[in-house]
Amino acid sequence: MIFIKNLKSVSDQEWSTTEKYPGVRWKFLIDADFTGSSGLSLGFAEIAPGGDLILHYHSPAEIYVVTGGVGTLNKSGKLEEVKKGDVVYIAGNAKHALKNTGKETLEFYWIFPTDRFSEVKYLY
Amino acid sequence: MIFIKNLKSVSDQEWSTTEKYPGVRWKFLIDADFTGSSGLSLGFAEIAPGGDLILHYHSPAEIYVVTGGVGTLNKSGKLEEVKKGDVVYIAGNAKHALKNTGKETLEFYWIFPTDRFSEVKYLY
Repeated sequence: MIFIKNLKSVSDQEWSTTEKYPGVRWKFLIDADFTGSSGLSLGFAEIAPGGDLILHYHSPAEIYVVTGGVGTLNKSGKLEEVKKGDVVYIAGNAKHALKNTGKETLEFYWIFPTDRFSEVKYLY
Repeated sequence: MIFIKNLKSVSDQEWSTTEKYPGVRWKFLIDADFTGSSGLSLGFAEIAPGGDLILHYHSPAEIYVVTGGVGTLNKSGKLEEVKKGDVVYIAGNAKHALKNTGKETLEFYWIFPTDRFSEVKYLY
């Protein structure tokens, strides 16, 4: 199985949101629940200016690929600026948060070494 | 462990190349051999116009995140255009190739659910 996805190809998929993360919305592009894939999963997220993906952690490692905007990454308490063109590595169980501190939408892909997002347990 | 990387931050790392893949060069950004990370690995690759990452396969699944250019993805024999803004899912052991058919550099990140690139056995 090999396939190509982009935001246009998932235009029929509604954006997901939660009250926990103000200003954040996301879609699933590579995910066993949507595409029958396995071994890796990927989603695309947008954080509006001022929006905050609050401090959380989970057992699998995670990668962010930042494709737009600028924000502040909380690395278990230490803050660092993150921007378009950066990639972020987050070890399993490391607490992290991401806030949009710019004027444009902060855009990024997240990747897990899991079949699906829904199997990743978010802890706070 | 949480860290941010970009091409500038690995300016001291030489580009890797091989005669097998004409016009292709790459660097390692998230990789146990370079950064002590685990669970996921990521590299950045460039394919010059006409360059070809020839048909190959490997046991782990793989994701491409295309950040520039346009090319032709070989999906085990079926060809499809791939371009900036696309993501690609490649199942474990699925034969694939990527050729730059445009005039600009084809740029992409690859991600494996492995600690390091060097543990992925490339087969042809």
